[in-house]
Amino acid sequence: MIQSGKLLSGVGAVGALLVLGAAPAQAEVSAETQFVFNTFSFLIHGVLVMWMAAGFAMLESGLVRTKNTATICLKNIALYSVAGLLYYIIGYSLMYTDVAGYIGSFSLFYNSSEAELALINAEDATAELIAPVVGNGYSVMSDWFFQMVFVATAASIVSGTLAERIKIWPFMIFIVALTGLIYPIQGSWTWGGGWLSELGFSDFAGSTIVHSVGGWAALTGAIILGARRGKYGADGRVRVLPGANLPLATLGTFILWFGWFGFNGGSQLALGSALDAAAIAIVYVNTNLAAAAGVVAAMALTQILYKKIDLTMALNGAIAGLVSITAGPDVQNHLYAIVIGAIGGGLVVVTIPLLDRLRIDDVVGAIPAHLVAGIWGTLAVGIFGSGSLGTQIVGILAIGAFVTVTSAVLWLALKVTLGIRVSDEEEEMGLDKAELGMEAYPEFGHGSQTI
Amino acid sequence: MIQSGKLLSGVGAVGALLVLGAAPAQAEVSAETQFVFNTFSFLIHGVLVMWMAAGFAMLESGLVRTKNTATICLKNIALYSVAGLLYYIIGYSLMYTDVAGYIGSFSLFYNSSEAELALINAEDATAELIAPVVGNGYSVMSDWFFQMVFVATAASIVSGTLAERIKIWPFMIFIVALTGLIYPIQGSWTWGGGWLSELGFSDFAGSTIVHSVGGWAALTGAIILGARRGKYGADGRVRVLPGANLPLATLGTFILWFGWFGFNGGSQLALGSALDAAAIAIVYVNTNLAAAAGVVAAMALTQILYKKIDLTMALNGAIAGLVSITAGPDVQNHLYAIVIGAIGGGLVVVTIPLLDRLRIDDVVGAIPAHLVAGIWGTLAVGIFGSGSLGTQIVGILAIGAFVTVTSAVLWLALKVTLGIRVSDEEEEMGLDKAELGMEAYPEFGHGSQTI
Amino acid sequence: MIQSGKLLSGVGAVGALLVLGAAPAQAEVSAETQFVFNTFSFLIHGVLVMWMAAGFAMLESGLVRTKNTATICLKNIALYSVAGLLYYIIGYSLMYTDVAGYIGSFSLFYNSSEAELALINAEDATAELIAPVVGNGYSVMSDWFFQMVFVATAASIVSGTLAERIKIWPFMIFIVALTGLIYPIQGSWTWGGGWLSELGFSDFAGSTIVHSVGGWAALTGAIILGARRGKYGADGRVRVLPGANLPLATLGTFILWFGWFGFNGGSQLALGSALDAAAIAIVYVNTNLAAAAGVVAAMALTQILYKKIDLTMALNGAIAGLVSITAGPDVQNHLYAIVIGAIGGGLVVVTIPLLDRLRIDDVVGAIPAHLVAGIWGTLAVGIFGSGSLGTQIVGILAIGAFVTVTSAVLWLALKVTLGIRVSDEEEEMGLDKAELGMEAYPEFGHGSQTI
Repeated sequence: MIQSGKLLSGVGAVGALLVLGAAPAQAEVSAETQFVFNTFSFLIHGVLVMWMAAGFAMLESGLVRTKNTATICLKNIALYSVAGLLYYIIGYSLMYTDVAGYIGSFSLFYNSSEAELALINAEDATAELIAPVVGNGYSVMSDWFFQMVFVATAASIVSGTLAERIKIWPFMIFIVALTGLIYPIQGSWTWGGGWLSELGFSDFAGSTIVHSVGGWAALTGAIILGARRGKYGADGRVRVLPGANLPLATLGTFILWFGWFGFNGGSQLALGSALDAAAIAIVYVNTNLAAAAGVVAAMALTQILYKKIDLTMALNGAIAGLVSITAGPDVQNHLYAIVIGAIGGGLVVVTIPLLDRLRIDDVVGAIPAHLVAGIWGTLAVGIFGSGSLGTQIVGILAIGAFVTVTSAVLWLALKVTLGIRVSDEEEEMGLDKAELGMEAYPEFGHGSQTI
Repeated sequence: MIQSGKLLSGVGAVGALLVLGAAPAQAEVSAETQFVFNTFSFLIHGVLVMWMAAGFAMLESGLVRTKNTATICLKNIALYSVAGLLYYIIGYSLMYTDVAGYIGSFSLFYNSSEAELALINAEDATAELIAPVVGNGYSVMSDWFFQMVFVATAASIVSGTLAERIKIWPFMIFIVALTGLIYPIQGSWTWGGGWLSELGFSDFAGSTIVHSVGGWAALTGAIILGARRGKYGADGRVRVLPGANLPLATLGTFILWFGWFGFNGGSQLALGSALDAAAIAIVYVNTNLAAAAGVVAAMALTQILYKKIDLTMALNGAIAGLVSITAGPDVQNHLYAIVIGAIGGGLVVVTIPLLDRLRIDDVVGAIPAHLVAGIWGTLAVGIFGSGSLGTQIVGILAIGAFVTVTSAVLWLALKVTLGIRVSDEEEEMGLDKAELGMEAYPEFGHGSQTI
Repeated sequence: MIQSGKLLSGVGAVGALLVLGAAPAQAEVSAETQFVFNTFSFLIHGVLVMWMAAGFAMLESGLVRTKNTATICLKNIALYSVAGLLYYIIGYSLMYTDVAGYIGSFSLFYNSSEAELALINAEDATAELIAPVVGNGYSVMSDWFFQMVFVATAASIVSGTLAERIKIWPFMIFIVALTGLIYPIQGSWTWGGGWLSELGFSDFAGSTIVHSVGGWAALTGAIILGARRGKYGADGRVRVLPGANLPLATLGTFILWFGWFGFNGGSQLALGSALDAAAIAIVYVNTNLAAAAGVVAAMALTQILYKKIDLTMALNGAIAGLVSITAGPDVQNHLYAIVIGAIGGGLVVVTIPLLDRLRIDDVVGAIPAHLVAGIWGTLAVGIFGSGSLGTQIVGILAIGAFVTVTSAVLWLALKVTLGIRVSDEEEEMGLDKAELGMEAYPEFGHGSQTI
């Protein structure tokens, strides 16, 4: 992601080093070494973010009922696959390649640079072949890989909210549009160097650009799709439909936390200087402190409000803490990170009953954890960080409006054409039998809950 | 793994840099920095591959029935352990140390180089001590570690196919021979610089050398061991014996996908130059696209053929896509990676019923995903890549024949001596009670299926 | 962790390189490149150790009964969170900042260095700004991050032993004291440069300083808390209370093994020279061989003693092998690593029934795997490595006495004030319903065991 401010600081560091002719040569990082560091940072941090797809799969598998578990597993591996393919076919180019005049220069099927291919295919790696490659600062496809796993994250957020009643294929069509068009277009506004970037909107690793985008798409879908049967009684009572496998949900949360070091750490976009390495270390520490504070805040608040701790609230507290710090994990006072994460965790606890009062059925709590905390984290940059609060609000609203409108049009179009919801009988039976003809746990079952 | 072509290009790059005396010093990667990069690449990528052992364990745990789950967990952690020990005692030396004349110079218990130990033990790290270490290009034991996790992968493939009826100790004896002798001997033919390497056989990260080897050993074992009781009725009907825990199988597939970036990315065998870093980025991207295409192809094909999507087919589609691209993940046109992966995923869908028609009982689908896709991927290098199709076929057949014959001899020897199959009563009771005296899920059970 | 011997060797290597004026510049690693390598090693290896928190969560989730599963999940994510917060607020400073005279210079809320913040905030990264940062050798907060995940590991060990009967909030208060005070104070004696370090006590990555500390705290707690109801009959019979989900326990063990490469590998504390990279490779190999030997030894011993293999013994064998090698994974003869790990695995098999005879109820086997193996591994440095056996014993006893006394005081204080144990009815009902008001697996249950 080309975050103008961030990338400039990186380039600045490189430039500064190249200028330091007087200093002894061994005090600096050579340009080619920087290239390797930056590329490796994209790849390794990108792999950690890829692993978050498994985190969402496990979190959602644990929080749905057994009769819908295989389907949510399928959706998660399918959406990660489709996101990668679409981002290759069109998404990345739409987001980063000459966004202003893309009709002319835009090309499908993003590929490596000619300079890199020439170097790789050469008999000898001459200085003339190496120079233009190194001049780019990092390998072209390593950046693609890192950006790709971000779009997949946005897509993963949607599946949890809409679980247990949405049809598979219409859902997949939505994911095609989200990852091929909606996400890249709004992403280009900031990370592609577009108008929000020029305005000074600041979103380090994507509280708004990734997490709120997934959250808005999920919220719009949840409203248009409607709640699960039996979730909200005619008498106004809310029925708890408990998740079937809480250790898996816990595992999913740990996976997300683990992967988030890649998500935020890699968003420094460079590793090849002391400045970048020190900045990434600060990002790691803040990421961890915010998540920890989110857990503790959610635990304390549920203890105070309900006289019991709730495991799923604690898990969502961790995620909300992570989402909250994502817009500004480079904050230099670590206490701020703790405050930001704690407020994020607290917001989850108060937002979940609010959604129920609005009869918006969010199966896994993705709207509080990703949308609400994403907005909070983006505002927090204006409060605790260097951004302007007004610009932050403009960015949040612009992206929110765009994603909500485009998602709504798409969800409605799917609703009137293919239909997006399974029949009442199928919902009762469970999507696993109805849509897949299989069971996730064929030998288990008949515990205290069979719903 | 010493892939002659690959390693030469890496060494070539190093050489080129050392020659560039005219270029400014800070434009290059110093030899010692290269050493660190290359070593770290082996270690970090190797750790990702190690994690694939957990992926196989979870995939197989999810696809067997509850009564055999603890046993498959045990086999997976045991085989990973035994593979590492055997590869240390004899395997690595057999594969890489003076293969031609190994009777004379071959030694058991592979160890670090004297140069490295001298450097580590010295009072001062003098230039004289550093030079011979750096001259090797990477740390000796980092390469050992990376190669070790590959042999463990080959061994992991076998356990899934033979699950639910094989005895533990005879299975472990087979793993001893596979990881100590069979794998290293055939591996030496290509990666050890042997006759297949001289012929020009091309297998970047082991579609044939790792995955088909595991697949052939599994196929041979499945035929000699026979199908599970009740799998194939006298009337020719095939009974579905569904896996007990599909979220675990999904987790296992995600783990494998995650680890595969280490498997293919690390097989560049170097990271210490712009060329190597850029090449690894291309490998990562192709690995991901092929897996994604495998998922989508398997989903689409099952929808068309059976009017339902099948989760386990989608999971095996991902694995088949990964196996398919493993022989040539450095292909420079990413569309080819998509095509290769999609065909791999499709092959799984058509091969699984074929095996059933032949009454070959492969519990987890390892033969389609690793053997069939492995062959396909190796052929694809001859079609889309730089290899010769004829040479690729020679390599596939030679390795297939060697592994099949040696495995068959060993399986038959075990069959007539110790016996390889539990009794009918034990199979009915489940291996967990029969072989371990425990249950994997003592408190669950009595769902719709109790078989 | 500032392990005097280790850190000096790293610094020595840096110093040596800077002195080598005669050698060609490109043969060395520049100081800033070293800084990036060292920092990145702390971060990536630290992330692997962070992931071990998930490993403990899964291991313990798999080994408790279903009625206590959600609670153990909550405790694990909560203790990881609290450990990070406390280590930030006070722990790290207590362990590493001017330990001798900390009353004067000690400060709460550890933060990045002024030099790093100045560099990050500067318009231009001038040589004057870079030099003091690079002079430190690594980023300040990367070291904090790496040390933080170690204290979390020590805390994780406690939760498993005390599962199924301890109250949540008193447990959390103990974790606050353990991670904020007890662990850092004893840690300062060796890694903070204190008296055990001056004495020559050698504990590379913490067999004693991390694992035995968690083990002593767990043992003390287990004695004061008492055994689970029904575990030990009046007639002296020991009742088996089997774990509910063995694949999760297997997954947890694989996660720990995976993360341990970060635990031991990162404890080299540097990556920026050929010496350090080669040393880390040796550490990785020994870590893997010891764990593998622990598995095989535990399998063989249970087969011999009980005529059956036990999966949980094999899993604890792996962990014991890992703990055993942690004090000296830099041993240069890999056969020693195998022997050390095998003895560790064997110790688990013989210690578990011993604890039962003493009626000390350790739900997951953490005392044998972390305390007994931790002591053994620390002694092994005196036997196979370079340490003195007498000094090793002094370190083991001093740390054991300190942790046991402080833990006992704290456990007893909590017992007489808040109470540490749930009521008999709550224990019968399960902590999930009693403390959280939820079920971990609401739809499963009623298998062969319902206890």
